[in-house]
Amino acid sequence: MKECFVMKEDEKKNPVFFSSPLERSGEALFIIKIGGNVIDDESNLYSFLKSFASIKEKKILVHGGGKIATTIGNKLGIESKYIDGRRITDDETIDLVTMVYGGLINKKIVAILQSLKCNAIGLSGADGNLIPATKRGNKTLLSGEAINYGWVGDINPDNINTSSWQLFINNNLIPVIAPLTHDEQGHILNTNADTMASVLSIALSKWYHVHLIYCFEKNGVLTNIHDETSVISELHEKFYNQLKQDKKLFAGILPKIDNAFNAINRGITNVVIGNSDNLLQLINEEGGTKIIA
Amino acid sequence: MKECFVMKEDEKKNPVFFSSPLERSGEALFIIKIGGNVIDDESNLYSFLKSFASIKEKKILVHGGGKIATTIGNKLGIESKYIDGRRITDDETIDLVTMVYGGLINKKIVAILQSLKCNAIGLSGADGNLIPATKRGNKTLLSGEAINYGWVGDINPDNINTSSWQLFINNNLIPVIAPLTHDEQGHILNTNADTMASVLSIALSKWYHVHLIYCFEKNGVLTNIHDETSVISELHEKFYNQLKQDKKLFAGILPKIDNAFNAINRGITNVVIGNSDNLLQLINEEGGTKIIA
Repeated sequence: MKECFVMKEDEKKNPVFFSSPLERSGEALFIIKIGGNVIDDESNLYSFLKSFASIKEKKILVHGGGKIATTIGNKLGIESKYIDGRRITDDETIDLVTMVYGGLINKKIVAILQSLKCNAIGLSGADGNLIPATKRGNKTLLSGEAINYGWVGDINPDNINTSSWQLFINNNLIPVIAPLTHDEQGHILNTNADTMASVLSIALSKWYHVHLIYCFEKNGVLTNIHDETSVISELHEKFYNQLKQDKKLFAGILPKIDNAFNAINRGITNVVIGNSDNLLQLINEEGGTKIIA
Repeated sequence: MKECFVMKEDEKKNPVFFSSPLERSGEALFIIKIGGNVIDDESNLYSFLKSFASIKEKKILVHGGGKIATTIGNKLGIESKYIDGRRITDDETIDLVTMVYGGLINKKIVAILQSLKCNAIGLSGADGNLIPATKRGNKTLLSGEAINYGWVGDINPDNINTSSWQLFINNNLIPVIAPLTHDEQGHILNTNADTMASVLSIALSKWYHVHLIYCFEKNGVLTNIHDETSVISELHEKFYNQLKQDKKLFAGILPKIDNAFNAINRGITNVVIGNSDNLLQLINEEGGTKIIA
Protein backbone atom coordinates (compact mmCIF):
# COMPACT_ATOMS: atom_id res chain seq x y z
CA MET A 1 0.00 0.00 0.00
CA LYS A 2 0.98 3.60 -0.39
CA GLU A 3 2.55 5.96 2.12
CA CYS A 4 0.19 8.26 3.97
CA PHE A 5 0.79 11.97 4.35
CA VAL A 6 1.89 11.62 7.98
CA MET A 7 3.88 14.49 9.46
CA LYS A 8 7.34 13.63 10.62
CA GLU A 9 8.22 14.51 14.23
CA ASP A 10 10.36 17.55 13.23
CA GLU A 11 7.61 18.82 10.91
CA LYS A 12 5.16 18.79 13.81
CA LYS A 13 7.47 21.07 15.81
CA ASN A 14 8.30 23.27 12.85
CA PRO A 15 5.56 22.78 10.28
CA VAL A 16 6.17 23.40 6.59
CA PHE A 17 3.28 25.03 4.76
CA PHE A 18 2.12 23.81 1.38
CA SER A 19 -0.36 25.48 -0.91
CA SER A 20 -1.88 22.02 -1.12
CA PRO A 21 -1.00 18.95 0.98
CA LEU A 22 -0.70 17.05 -2.31
CA GLU A 23 2.41 18.93 -3.35
CA ARG A 24 4.32 16.72 -0.94
CA SER A 25 4.22 13.86 -3.38
CA GLY A 26 5.93 14.04 -6.74
CA GLU A 27 3.78 11.13 -7.73
CA ALA A 28 0.31 12.58 -7.18
CA LEU A 29 -1.96 11.91 -10.15
CA PHE A 30 -5.36 13.56 -10.55
CA ILE A 31 -7.90 11.67 -12.62
CA ILE A 32 -10.79 14.00 -13.24
CA LYS A 33 -14.07 13.05 -14.89
CA ILE A 34 -16.53 15.51 -16.40
CA GLY A 35 -19.97 14.72 -17.75
CA GLY A 36 -22.36 16.13 -20.29
CA ASN A 37 -23.56 19.10 -18.26
CA VAL A 38 -20.10 20.66 -18.22
CA ILE A 39 -19.50 19.86 -21.89
CA ASP A 40 -22.82 21.22 -23.16
CA ASP A 41 -22.20 24.77 -21.92
CA GLU A 42 -19.27 26.42 -23.74
CA SER A 43 -18.57 29.01 -21.11
CA ASN A 44 -18.75 26.43 -18.28
CA LEU A 45 -16.45 24.14 -20.21
CA TYR A 46 -13.89 26.87 -20.81
CA SER A 47 -13.83 27.93 -17.20
CA PHE A 48 -13.53 24.28 -16.06
CA LEU A 49 -10.66 23.66 -18.49
CA LYS A 50 -8.89 26.80 -17.26
CA SER A 51 -8.94 25.34 -13.75
CA PHE A 52 -7.87 21.94 -15.05
CA ALA A 53 -4.95 23.46 -16.97
CA SER A 54 -3.75 25.23 -13.83
CA ILE A 55 -3.29 21.98 -11.86
CA LYS A 56 0.45 21.55 -11.49
CA GLU A 57 0.42 17.85 -10.66
CA LYS A 58 0.18 14.98 -13.14
CA LYS A 59 -3.35 14.67 -14.47
CA ILE A 60 -5.78 12.91 -16.78
CA LEU A 61 -9.18 14.14 -17.97
CA VAL A 62 -11.95 11.63 -18.76
CA HIS A 63 -15.00 13.10 -20.47
CA GLY A 64 -18.49 11.78 -21.08
CA GLY A 65 -20.93 12.64 -23.82
CA GLY A 66 -23.47 15.39 -23.63
CA LYS A 67 -26.65 16.53 -25.28
CA ILE A 68 -24.79 17.44 -28.46
CA ALA A 69 -24.76 13.76 -29.50
CA THR A 70 -28.55 13.67 -29.18
CA THR A 71 -28.91 16.99 -31.06
CA ILE A 72 -26.71 15.83 -33.94
CA GLY A 73 -28.35 12.39 -33.85
CA ASN A 74 -31.79 13.99 -34.20
CA LYS A 75 -30.62 16.01 -37.21
CA LEU A 76 -29.29 12.80 -38.78
CA GLY A 77 -32.57 11.01 -38.05
CA ILE A 78 -30.98 8.71 -35.44
CA GLU A 79 -33.34 8.07 -32.56
CA SER A 80 -32.20 7.13 -29.08
CA LYS A 81 -33.33 3.56 -28.43
CA TYR A 82 -34.05 2.06 -25.03
CA ILE A 83 -35.03 -1.45 -23.94
CA ASP A 84 -36.03 -1.94 -20.31
CA GLY A 85 -34.73 1.56 -19.55
CA ARG A 86 -31.27 0.80 -20.95
CA ARG A 87 -29.88 2.72 -23.91
CA ILE A 88 -29.06 0.53 -26.89
CA THR A 89 -26.05 1.34 -29.09
CA ASP A 90 -26.98 0.11 -32.57
CA ASP A 91 -24.89 0.52 -35.76
CA GLU A 92 -25.85 4.11 -36.44
CA THR A 93 -25.57 5.13 -32.78
CA ILE A 94 -22.01 3.83 -32.43
CA ASP A 95 -21.01 5.84 -35.52
CA LEU A 96 -22.70 8.89 -33.99
CA VAL A 97 -20.93 8.64 -30.62
CA THR A 98 -17.62 7.77 -32.28
CA MET A 99 -17.90 11.04 -34.23
CA VAL A 100 -19.16 13.19 -31.41
CA TYR A 101 -17.29 11.82 -28.40
CA GLY A 102 -14.08 10.75 -30.15
CA GLY A 103 -14.00 13.65 -32.63
CA LEU A 104 -15.97 16.78 -31.88
CA ILE A 105 -15.88 16.86 -28.07
CA ASN A 106 -12.44 15.31 -27.63
CA LYS A 107 -10.62 17.53 -30.13
CA LYS A 108 -12.43 20.69 -28.99
CA ILE A 109 -11.23 20.04 -25.44
CA VAL A 110 -7.70 19.37 -26.72
CA ALA A 111 -7.63 22.64 -28.73
CA ILE A 112 -8.83 24.67 -25.73
CA LEU A 113 -6.32 23.03 -23.36
CA GLN A 114 -3.51 23.57 -25.87
CA SER A 115 -4.45 27.27 -26.01
CA LEU A 116 -4.07 27.28 -22.21
CA LYS A 117 -0.54 25.81 -22.56
CA CYS A 118 -1.66 22.41 -21.27
CA ASN A 119 -0.14 19.73 -23.50
CA ALA A 120 -3.34 17.72 -23.97
CA ILE A 121 -3.45 14.59 -26.11
CA GLY A 122 -6.91 13.32 -27.08
CA LEU A 123 -7.35 9.56 -26.95
CA SER A 124 -9.95 6.86 -26.46
CA GLY A 125 -9.64 3.48 -24.77
CA ALA A 126 -9.18 1.95 -28.24
CA ASP A 127 -6.05 3.98 -29.03
CA GLY A 128 -2.94 2.03 -28.15
CA ASN A 129 -5.38 -0.52 -26.63
CA LEU A 130 -5.12 1.70 -23.55
CA ILE A 131 -8.34 0.40 -21.97
CA PRO A 132 -9.10 -3.13 -23.16
CA ALA A 133 -12.76 -4.07 -23.21
CA THR A 134 -15.19 -6.74 -24.35
CA LYS A 135 -18.54 -6.29 -26.10
CA ARG A 136 -21.30 -6.69 -23.55
CA GLY A 137 -23.18 -9.97 -23.95
CA ASN A 138 -26.94 -10.26 -24.27
CA LYS A 139 -28.92 -10.19 -21.07
CA THR A 140 -32.03 -12.29 -20.54
CA LEU A 141 -34.80 -10.61 -18.59
CA LEU A 142 -37.10 -12.44 -16.18
CA SER A 143 -39.73 -12.23 -18.93
CA GLY A 144 -37.45 -14.35 -21.10
CA GLU A 145 -36.76 -11.46 -23.48
CA ALA A 146 -33.10 -11.15 -24.48
CA ILE A 147 -31.60 -7.64 -24.50
CA ASN A 148 -28.84 -6.95 -26.99
CA TYR A 149 -27.13 -3.76 -25.81
CA GLY A 150 -25.38 -3.42 -29.14
CA TRP A 151 -21.91 -1.86 -29.37
CA VAL A 152 -21.34 -1.39 -25.65
CA GLY A 153 -18.02 -2.16 -23.99
CA ASP A 154 -17.32 -3.65 -20.58
CA ILE A 155 -13.79 -2.83 -19.45
CA ASN A 156 -11.32 -5.60 -18.60
CA PRO A 157 -9.92 -4.00 -15.44
CA ASP A 158 -6.95 -6.36 -15.07
CA ASN A 159 -5.52 -5.64 -18.51
CA ILE A 160 -5.10 -1.85 -18.45
CA ASN A 161 -2.00 -0.96 -20.46
CA THR A 162 -0.23 0.82 -17.59
CA SER A 163 3.13 1.14 -19.34
CA SER A 164 1.65 3.28 -22.14
CA TRP A 165 -0.25 5.35 -19.59
CA GLN A 166 3.01 5.97 -17.73
CA LEU A 167 4.74 6.85 -20.98
CA PHE A 168 2.26 9.70 -21.55
CA ILE A 169 1.99 10.85 -17.95
CA ASN A 170 5.72 10.88 -17.31
CA ASN A 171 6.44 12.75 -20.56
CA ASN A 172 4.12 15.66 -19.89
CA LEU A 173 1.42 14.54 -22.29
CA ILE A 174 -1.94 15.13 -20.59
CA PRO A 175 -4.42 12.43 -21.69
CA VAL A 176 -7.96 13.57 -22.52
CA ILE A 177 -10.03 10.41 -22.80
CA ALA A 178 -13.24 9.85 -24.78
CA PRO A 179 -15.59 7.10 -23.51
CA LEU A 180 -14.90 4.63 -26.31
CA THR A 181 -13.12 1.28 -26.38
CA HIS A 182 -12.84 -1.51 -29.00
CA ASP A 183 -13.77 -5.18 -29.17
CA GLU A 184 -10.57 -6.59 -30.76
CA GLN A 185 -12.74 -7.51 -33.76
CA GLY A 186 -12.50 -4.12 -35.45
CA HIS A 187 -15.43 -2.31 -33.80
CA ILE A 188 -15.62 0.70 -31.53
CA LEU A 189 -17.64 0.25 -28.31
CA ASN A 190 -19.57 2.86 -26.33
CA THR A 191 -18.21 2.75 -22.78
CA ASN A 192 -19.23 4.31 -19.48
CA ALA A 193 -16.93 7.24 -18.63
CA ASP A 194 -17.48 6.96 -14.84
CA THR A 195 -16.35 3.33 -14.94
CA MET A 196 -13.38 4.21 -17.16
CA ALA A 197 -12.21 6.81 -14.63
CA SER A 198 -12.61 4.39 -11.73
CA VAL A 199 -10.89 1.42 -13.41
CA LEU A 200 -8.05 3.63 -14.63
CA SER A 201 -7.59 5.07 -11.13
CA ILE A 202 -7.29 1.59 -9.64
CA ALA A 203 -4.83 0.41 -12.30
CA LEU A 204 -2.58 3.47 -11.96
CA SER A 205 -2.69 3.52 -8.15
CA LYS A 206 0.18 1.04 -8.21
CA TRP A 207 2.38 3.81 -9.63
CA TYR A 208 0.89 7.07 -8.40
CA HIS A 209 -1.02 8.53 -5.46
CA VAL A 210 -4.26 8.69 -7.42
CA HIS A 211 -6.92 11.27 -6.59
CA LEU A 212 -10.16 10.56 -8.44
CA ILE A 213 -12.54 13.50 -8.80
CA TYR A 214 -16.00 13.09 -10.27
CA CYS A 215 -17.22 16.50 -11.41
CA PHE A 216 -20.84 17.12 -12.23
CA GLU A 217 -23.47 19.85 -11.94
CA LYS A 218 -24.29 19.34 -8.24
CA ASN A 219 -22.27 20.25 -5.17
CA GLY A 220 -21.81 16.62 -4.17
CA VAL A 221 -23.99 13.76 -2.97
CA LEU A 222 -27.08 15.50 -1.63
CA THR A 223 -29.57 14.20 0.94
CA ASN A 224 -32.15 16.46 -0.70
CA ILE A 225 -31.74 16.76 -4.46
CA HIS A 226 -33.46 20.16 -4.44
CA ASP A 227 -31.11 21.62 -1.83
CA GLU A 228 -27.52 22.25 -2.91
CA THR A 229 -26.53 22.87 0.70
CA SER A 230 -27.52 19.34 1.73
CA VAL A 231 -24.11 17.96 0.69
CA ILE A 232 -22.91 14.87 2.54
CA SER A 233 -19.30 15.85 3.23
CA GLU A 234 -18.09 12.32 4.03
CA LEU A 235 -19.81 9.21 2.77
CA HIS A 236 -19.08 5.85 4.40
CA GLU A 237 -20.35 2.68 2.77
CA LYS A 238 -22.64 1.84 5.69
CA PHE A 239 -24.29 5.29 5.49
CA TYR A 240 -24.54 4.92 1.70
CA ASN A 241 -26.30 1.57 2.02
CA GLN A 242 -28.72 3.12 4.52
CA LEU A 243 -29.45 6.05 2.18
CA LYS A 244 -30.06 3.64 -0.70
CA GLN A 245 -32.38 1.53 1.45
CA ASP A 246 -34.32 4.66 2.45
CA LYS A 247 -34.45 5.73 -1.25
CA LYS A 248 -32.96 9.10 -0.32
CA LEU A 249 -30.63 9.25 -3.34
CA PHE A 250 -31.75 9.78 -6.91
CA ALA A 251 -31.13 6.76 -9.11
CA GLY A 252 -28.83 8.54 -11.57
CA ILE A 253 -26.07 9.06 -9.03
CA LEU A 254 -25.90 5.46 -7.78
CA PRO A 255 -23.56 4.06 -10.48
CA LYS A 256 -21.20 7.03 -9.92
CA ILE A 257 -21.08 6.33 -6.17
CA ASP A 258 -20.64 2.60 -6.77
CA ASN A 259 -17.67 3.38 -9.03
CA ALA A 260 -16.31 5.74 -6.37
CA PHE A 261 -16.52 3.05 -3.64
CA ASN A 262 -15.00 0.49 -5.97
CA ALA A 263 -12.01 2.82 -6.43
CA ILE A 264 -11.52 3.76 -2.77
CA ASN A 265 -11.82 0.12 -1.70
CA ARG A 266 -9.10 -0.85 -4.15
CA GLY A 267 -6.46 1.40 -2.63
CA ILE A 268 -6.61 4.73 -4.41
CA THR A 269 -5.70 7.74 -2.27
CA ASN A 270 -8.78 9.91 -2.45
CA VAL A 271 -12.18 10.00 -4.17
CA VAL A 272 -14.36 13.10 -4.25
CA ILE A 273 -17.69 13.82 -5.98
CA GLY A 274 -18.44 17.52 -6.48
CA ASN A 275 -19.32 20.49 -8.64
CA SER A 276 -17.24 21.13 -11.75
CA ASP A 277 -17.38 24.86 -10.93
CA ASN A 278 -15.30 24.14 -7.82
CA LEU A 279 -12.56 21.97 -9.31
CA LEU A 280 -9.69 23.74 -7.58
CA GLN A 281 -11.40 23.52 -4.17
CA LEU A 282 -12.15 19.81 -4.71
CA ILE A 283 -8.50 19.23 -5.49
CA ASN A 284 -7.59 20.83 -2.19
CA GLU A 285 -10.11 18.56 -0.48
CA GLU A 286 -12.50 21.42 0.17
CA GLY A 287 -16.18 20.86 -0.55
CA GLY A 288 -17.87 18.02 -2.37
CA THR A 289 -18.49 14.55 -1.00
CA LYS A 290 -15.42 12.60 0.09
CA ILE A 291 -15.87 8.85 -0.25
CA ILE A 292 -14.57 6.99 2.80
CA ALA A 293 -13.36 3.38 2.59
CA MET B 1 23.07 12.64 -44.49
CA LYS B 2 21.98 9.09 -43.95
CA GLU B 3 23.76 5.81 -44.70
CA CYS B 4 22.92 4.13 -47.98
CA PHE B 5 22.05 0.45 -48.30
CA VAL B 6 25.42 -0.46 -49.75
CA MET B 7 26.39 -4.13 -49.69
CA LYS B 8 29.51 -4.97 -47.77
CA GLU B 9 32.28 -6.85 -49.66
CA ASP B 10 31.52 -10.22 -48.02
CA GLU B 11 27.79 -9.82 -48.73
CA LYS B 12 28.55 -9.36 -52.40
CA LYS B 13 30.36 -12.71 -52.47
CA ASN B 14 27.79 -14.48 -50.37
CA PRO B 15 24.62 -12.43 -50.60
CA VAL B 16 22.05 -12.54 -47.84
CA PHE B 17 18.45 -12.46 -49.03
CA PHE B 18 15.93 -10.15 -47.46
CA SER B 19 12.22 -10.13 -48.07
CA SER B 20 12.70 -6.37 -48.44
CA PRO B 21 15.98 -4.45 -48.73
CA LEU B 22 14.65 -2.11 -46.05
CA GLU B 23 14.86 -4.78 -43.36
CA ARG B 24 18.56 -4.03 -43.26
CA SER B 25 17.93 -0.85 -41.29
CA GLY B 26 16.42 -0.84 -37.84
CA GLU B 27 15.70 2.80 -38.39
CA ALA B 28 13.53 2.66 -41.50
CA LEU B 29 10.27 4.57 -41.02
CA PHE B 30 7.38 4.32 -43.47
CA ILE B 31 5.04 7.30 -43.58
CA ILE B 32 2.03 6.25 -45.61
CA LYS B 33 -0.77 8.55 -46.68
CA ILE B 34 -4.20 7.38 -47.83
CA GLY B 35 -6.94 9.53 -49.26
CA GLY B 36 -10.70 9.47 -49.47
CA ASN B 37 -11.04 6.83 -52.18
CA VAL B 38 -9.46 4.17 -49.97
CA ILE B 39 -11.45 5.27 -46.94
CA ASP B 40 -14.83 5.40 -48.69
CA ASP B 41 -14.84 1.72 -49.63
CA GLU B 42 -14.97 -0.54 -46.56
CA SER B 43 -13.57 -3.60 -48.25
CA ASN B 44 -10.73 -1.62 -49.89
CA LEU B 45 -9.93 0.00 -46.57
CA TYR B 46 -9.79 -3.34 -44.75
CA SER B 47 -7.53 -4.89 -47.33
CA PHE B 48 -5.25 -1.82 -47.31
CA LEU B 49 -5.06 -1.87 -43.49
CA LYS B 50 -4.23 -5.58 -43.55
CA SER B 51 -1.22 -4.78 -45.74
CA PHE B 52 -0.30 -1.81 -43.56
CA ALA B 53 -0.48 -3.95 -40.39
CA SER B 54 1.86 -6.51 -41.94
CA ILE B 55 4.70 -3.99 -42.42
CA LYS B 56 7.36 -4.96 -39.91
CA GLU B 57 9.25 -1.68 -39.89
CA LYS B 58 8.34 1.46 -37.95
CA LYS B 59 5.38 3.21 -39.53
CA ILE B 60 2.89 6.07 -39.44
CA LEU B 61 -0.44 6.32 -41.27
CA VAL B 62 -1.78 9.72 -42.33
CA HIS B 63 -5.35 9.71 -43.60
CA GLY B 64 -7.44 12.24 -45.48
CA GLY B 65 -11.16 12.74 -45.50
CA GLY B 66 -13.51 11.09 -47.91
CA LYS B 67 -17.03 11.38 -49.25
CA ILE B 68 -18.50 10.41 -45.91
CA ALA B 69 -17.94 13.95 -44.60
CA THR B 70 -19.95 15.32 -47.53
CA THR B 71 -22.67 12.67 -47.04
CA ILE B 72 -23.02 13.42 -43.32
CA GLY B 73 -22.74 17.17 -44.03
CA ASN B 74 -25.61 16.94 -46.50
CA LYS B 75 -27.77 15.14 -43.94
CA LEU B 76 -26.97 17.87 -41.43
CA GLY B 77 -27.80 20.56 -43.99
CA ILE B 78 -24.18 21.73 -44.23
CA GLU B 79 -23.29 22.71 -47.77
CA SER B 80 -19.78 22.64 -49.18
CA LYS B 81 -18.74 26.23 -49.86
CA TYR B 82 -16.23 27.34 -52.44
CA ILE B 83 -14.79 30.75 -53.31
CA ASP B 84 -12.61 31.00 -56.40
CA GLY B 85 -12.54 27.20 -56.57
CA ARG B 86 -11.20 26.88 -53.02
CA ARG B 87 -13.14 25.07 -50.33
CA ILE B 88 -14.00 27.27 -47.35
CA THR B 89 -14.05 25.82 -43.85
CA ASP B 90 -16.67 27.80 -41.95
CA ASP B 91 -17.86 27.19 -38.38
CA GLU B 92 -20.19 24.33 -39.16
CA THR B 93 -17.75 22.72 -41.61
CA ILE B 94 -14.89 22.62 -39.10
CA ASP B 95 -17.22 20.89 -36.60
CA LEU B 96 -18.20 18.44 -39.33
CA VAL B 97 -14.64 17.52 -40.30
CA THR B 98 -13.54 17.40 -36.66
CA MET B 99 -16.26 14.80 -36.05
CA VAL B 100 -15.75 12.82 -39.21
CA TYR B 101 -11.97 12.95 -39.69
CA GLY B 102 -10.93 13.07 -36.02
CA GLY B 103 -13.68 10.76 -34.73
CA LEU B 104 -15.42 8.45 -37.16
CA ILE B 105 -12.66 7.74 -39.69
CA ASN B 106 -9.73 7.91 -37.28
CA LYS B 107 -11.22 5.60 -34.62
CA LYS B 108 -12.60 3.13 -37.19
CA ILE B 109 -9.10 2.75 -38.63
CA VAL B 110 -7.67 2.34 -35.12
CA ALA B 111 -10.22 -0.38 -34.22
CA ILE B 112 -9.51 -2.31 -37.44
CA LEU B 113 -5.72 -2.05 -36.98
CA GLN B 114 -6.02 -3.14 -33.34
CA SER B 115 -7.99 -6.21 -34.51
CA LEU B 116 -5.04 -6.95 -36.81
CA LYS B 117 -2.67 -6.78 -33.81
CA CYS B 118 -1.20 -3.46 -34.94
CA ASN B 119 -0.96 -1.16 -31.92
CA ALA B 120 -2.50 1.90 -33.58
CA ILE B 121 -3.00 5.17 -31.72
CA GLY B 122 -5.33 7.69 -33.35
CA LEU B 123 -4.18 11.30 -33.16
CA SER B 124 -4.43 14.63 -34.93
CA GLY B 125 -1.86 17.37 -35.33
CA ALA B 126 -3.52 19.18 -32.40
CA ASP B 127 -2.93 16.33 -29.94
CA GLY B 128 0.25 16.90 -27.99
CA ASN B 129 0.77 19.86 -30.36
CA LEU B 130 2.35 17.23 -32.62
CA ILE B 131 2.03 19.33 -35.80
CA PRO B 132 1.96 23.05 -34.98
CA ALA B 133 0.04 25.21 -37.41
CA THR B 134 -1.30 28.70 -37.97
CA LYS B 135 -4.71 29.74 -39.26
CA ARG B 136 -4.40 30.70 -42.91
CA GLY B 137 -4.66 34.44 -43.46
CA ASN B 138 -7.08 36.09 -45.89
CA LYS B 139 -5.99 36.24 -49.49
CA THR B 140 -6.77 39.18 -51.74
CA LEU B 141 -7.63 38.29 -55.32
CA LEU B 142 -6.68 40.42 -58.34
CA SER B 143 -10.30 41.56 -58.36
CA GLY B 144 -9.72 43.05 -54.92
CA GLU B 145 -12.03 40.51 -53.27
CA ALA B 146 -10.62 39.10 -50.01
CA ILE B 147 -10.96 35.35 -49.49
CA ASN B 148 -11.33 34.12 -45.94
CA TYR B 149 -10.55 30.40 -46.04
CA GLY B 150 -12.02 29.98 -42.58
CA TRP B 151 -10.65 27.35 -40.18
CA VAL B 152 -7.80 26.15 -42.37
CA GLY B 153 -4.34 25.41 -40.97
CA ASP B 154 -0.95 26.02 -42.54
CA ILE B 155 1.70 23.84 -40.91
CA ASN B 156 4.75 25.40 -39.26
CA PRO B 157 7.32 22.92 -40.64
CA ASP B 158 10.18 23.98 -38.38
CA ASN B 159 8.31 23.35 -35.14
CA ILE B 160 7.28 19.71 -35.48
CA ASN B 161 7.40 18.12 -32.04
CA THR B 162 9.88 15.39 -33.00
CA SER B 163 10.53 14.18 -29.44
CA SER B 164 6.88 13.18 -28.95
CA TRP B 165 6.85 11.52 -32.38
CA GLN B 166 9.91 9.52 -31.40
CA LEU B 167 8.31 8.61 -28.08
CA PHE B 168 5.41 6.93 -29.92
CA ILE B 169 7.41 5.41 -32.74
CA ASN B 170 10.11 3.96 -30.49
CA ASN B 171 7.55 2.50 -28.07
CA ASN B 172 5.61 0.51 -30.65
CA LEU B 173 2.69 2.90 -30.80
CA ILE B 174 1.69 3.26 -34.46
CA PRO B 175 0.36 6.80 -35.07
CA VAL B 176 -2.77 7.12 -37.23
CA ILE B 177 -3.10 10.81 -38.03
CA ALA B 178 -6.25 12.77 -38.91
CA PRO B 179 -5.78 15.94 -41.02
CA LEU B 180 -6.52 18.42 -38.24
CA THR B 181 -4.32 20.90 -36.38
CA HIS B 182 -5.05 23.77 -33.96
CA ASP B 183 -4.45 27.51 -33.93
CA GLU B 184 -3.16 27.95 -30.33
CA GLN B 185 -6.31 30.03 -29.72
CA GLY B 186 -8.58 27.07 -28.92
CA HIS B 187 -9.77 26.19 -32.44
CA ILE B 188 -9.32 23.12 -34.60
CA LEU B 189 -8.07 23.73 -38.17
CA ASN B 190 -8.71 21.71 -41.31
CA THR B 191 -5.30 20.77 -42.72
CA ASN B 192 -4.10 19.16 -45.93
CA ALA B 193 -3.14 15.52 -45.32
CA ASP B 194 -0.65 15.36 -48.21
CA THR B 195 1.25 18.32 -46.77
CA MET B 196 1.12 16.81 -43.28
CA ALA B 197 2.73 13.61 -44.55
CA SER B 198 5.42 15.53 -46.43
CA VAL B 199 6.28 17.92 -43.57
CA LEU B 200 6.33 15.07 -41.06
CA SER B 201 8.63 13.03 -43.32
CA ILE B 202 11.09 15.89 -43.56
CA ALA B 203 11.08 16.53 -39.79
CA LEU B 204 11.59 12.87 -38.92
CA SER B 205 14.25 12.25 -41.58
CA LYS B 206 16.80 13.52 -39.07
CA TRP B 207 16.10 10.42 -36.98
CA TYR B 208 14.96 7.73 -39.40
CA HIS B 209 15.39 6.59 -42.99
CA VAL B 210 12.00 7.92 -44.01
CA HIS B 211 10.09 6.35 -46.89
CA LEU B 212 7.07 8.45 -47.84
CA ILE B 213 4.36 6.63 -49.79
CA TYR B 214 1.38 8.47 -51.21
CA CYS B 215 -1.37 5.93 -51.86
CA PHE B 216 -4.35 6.76 -54.01
CA GLU B 217 -6.67 5.12 -56.54
CA LYS B 218 -4.31 5.30 -59.52
CA ASN B 219 -1.22 3.27 -60.30
CA GLY B 220 1.05 6.29 -60.06
CA VAL B 221 1.61 9.52 -61.98
CA LEU B 222 0.12 8.79 -65.40
CA THR B 223 0.95 10.46 -68.71
CA ASN B 224 -2.57 9.56 -69.80
CA ILE B 225 -5.12 9.73 -67.02
CA HIS B 226 -7.35 7.19 -68.82
CA ASP B 227 -4.59 4.60 -69.14
CA GLU B 228 -3.45 2.91 -65.92
CA THR B 229 -0.47 1.41 -67.75
CA SER B 230 0.92 4.88 -68.59
CA VAL B 231 2.71 5.10 -65.23
CA ILE B 232 5.83 7.23 -65.11
CA SER B 233 8.15 4.94 -63.17
CA GLU B 234 10.70 7.64 -62.27
CA LEU B 235 9.83 11.33 -62.14
CA HIS B 236 12.64 13.90 -62.18
CA GLU B 237 11.82 17.54 -61.47
CA LYS B 238 12.83 18.64 -64.96
CA PHE B 239 10.50 16.09 -66.55
CA TYR B 240 7.76 17.11 -64.11
CA ASN B 241 8.10 20.77 -65.06
CA GLN B 242 7.90 19.82 -68.73
CA LEU B 243 4.75 17.75 -68.15
CA LYS B 244 3.17 20.63 -66.24
CA GLN B 245 4.06 23.05 -69.02
CA ASP B 246 2.52 20.70 -71.59
CA LYS B 247 -0.57 20.35 -69.33
CA LYS B 248 -0.21 16.59 -69.46
CA LEU B 249 -1.02 16.07 -65.78
CA PHE B 250 -4.46 16.52 -64.27
CA ALA B 251 -4.62 19.43 -61.85
CA GLY B 252 -5.64 17.36 -58.79
CA ILE B 253 -2.34 15.52 -58.62
CA LEU B 254 -0.08 18.61 -58.77
CA PRO B 255 -0.11 19.49 -55.03
CA LYS B 256 0.66 15.84 -54.21
CA ILE B 257 3.67 15.85 -56.56
CA ASP B 258 4.81 19.23 -55.24
CA ASN B 259 4.70 17.80 -51.70
CA ALA B 260 6.59 14.74 -52.90
CA PHE B 261 9.37 16.86 -54.47
CA ASN B 262 9.52 19.05 -51.39
CA ALA B 263 10.16 15.91 -49.31
CA ILE B 264 12.73 14.29 -51.59
CA ASN B 265 14.61 17.57 -51.95
CA ARG B 266 14.83 17.88 -48.17
CA GLY B 267 16.71 14.62 -47.67
CA ILE B 268 14.17 11.89 -47.09
CA THR B 269 15.19 8.48 -48.38
CA ASN B 270 12.44 7.61 -50.81
CA VAL B 271 9.13 9.00 -52.10
CA VAL B 272 6.68 6.92 -54.11
CA ILE B 273 3.19 7.71 -55.44
CA GLY B 274 1.09 4.65 -56.23
CA ASN B 275 -2.03 2.55 -55.88
CA SER B 276 -3.25 1.72 -52.37
CA ASP B 277 -4.07 -1.80 -53.63
CA ASN B 278 -0.34 -2.37 -54.13
CA LEU B 279 1.00 -1.10 -50.81
CA LEU B 280 3.34 -4.02 -50.20
CA GLN B 281 4.83 -3.76 -53.70
CA LEU B 282 5.30 0.01 -53.28
CA ILE B 283 7.14 -0.61 -50.02
CA ASN B 284 9.48 -2.94 -51.87
CA GLU B 285 10.02 -0.22 -54.48
CA GLU B 286 8.03 -2.12 -57.10
CA GLY B 287 5.52 -0.17 -59.17
CA GLY B 288 4.21 3.32 -58.69
CA THR B 289 6.04 6.54 -59.50
CA LYS B 290 9.35 7.08 -57.75
CA ILE B 291 10.16 10.74 -57.22
CA ILE B 292 13.79 11.52 -58.05
CA ALA B 293 15.64 14.42 -56.44
